[in-house]
Amino acid sequence: MLQKGVVEVERDITFRLAAEEDLERIVQMLADDVLGEERERYEDPLPEGYLKAFKAIESDPNNELTVACHDKEIIGVMQITFTPYLTHQGSWRATIEGVRTSSAVRGQGVGSKMINWAVDRARERGCSLVQLTTDKQRGEALRFYQKLGFTATHEGMKMKL
Amino acid sequence: MLQKGVVEVERDITFRLAAEEDLERIVQMLADDVLGEERERYEDPLPEGYLKAFKAIESDPNNELTVACHDKEIIGVMQITFTPYLTHQGSWRATIEGVRTSSAVRGQGVGSKMINWAVDRARERGCSLVQLTTDKQRGEALRFYQKLGFTATHEGMKMKL
Repeated sequence: MLQKGVVEVERDITFRLAAEEDLERIVQMLADDVLGEERERYEDPLPEGYLKAFKAIESDPNNELTVACHDKEIIGVMQITFTPYLTHQGSWRATIEGVRTSSAVRGQGVGSKMINWAVDRARERGCSLVQLTTDKQRGEALRFYQKLGFTATHEGMKMKL
Repeated sequence: MLQKGVVEVERDITFRLAAEEDLERIVQMLADDVLGEERERYEDPLPEGYLKAFKAIESDPNNELTVACHDKEIIGVMQITFTPYLTHQGSWRATIEGVRTSSAVRGQGVGSKMINWAVDRARERGCSLVQLTTDKQRGEALRFYQKLGFTATHEGMKMKL
């Protein structure tokens, strides 16, 4: 039995590139998150930075802001970046970032479906590696990604400017 | 006193974008590395994958393959990728990858100069964050990056395809 306020997601999750009209909903999801609520601003009108970033992402063929939909409603978002590297004898990598699912569908495997979809997309683009970093504060995320086949072989180091 | 075979690098390290003519020297450096020697192929002629990857990097304004030079000789290489993200109210990040220095100049702070240069370049490009992942097998690398101001807040997760 699902709890009240929870939307049951059946098998029919579809994926597509995000459009400008989706931006408000996407920012709402980014802000509805333990770490995101401190650093995002879901306001009307949206801070201009979001639209500028959206346009930069949209115009770059190596960046795909992807939404997961159920019944035309957006229930998840993630960004996939494709990068060519000289290492490994010349190869492409896919980096997954900013993965969020709607709180209304949590615990129903939507996140797993999204990541599996991103991995398939990386294969389609000829990548030999998929990578992501996950904040060490998100304890469950590590196990979540390990179950999906990722290994925590690296330290993810950041410096704020 | 420097050891035999070691080139003394004075203050004049210059940085520039890599050109196609640099590719052989760059691959030589990538292969001259504990982890790289297993996965790279420094051969004559170079495996085609390197040139294809180089051309993909060169034609992408958000990827900068950068070489550090001393007396016109290449002594270091790194790739900086600039990526727009919606998170943090819309922001750009710089990702540093494939950092290698020539074995002839190790222990003279060339690596630090390269990373500091990349951080300055990230500022110049308007990034609010610089990130990198480092293989947990490279024990010294963690301390090296911490000294330069990076914090290991994230797990770096990878999946080979």
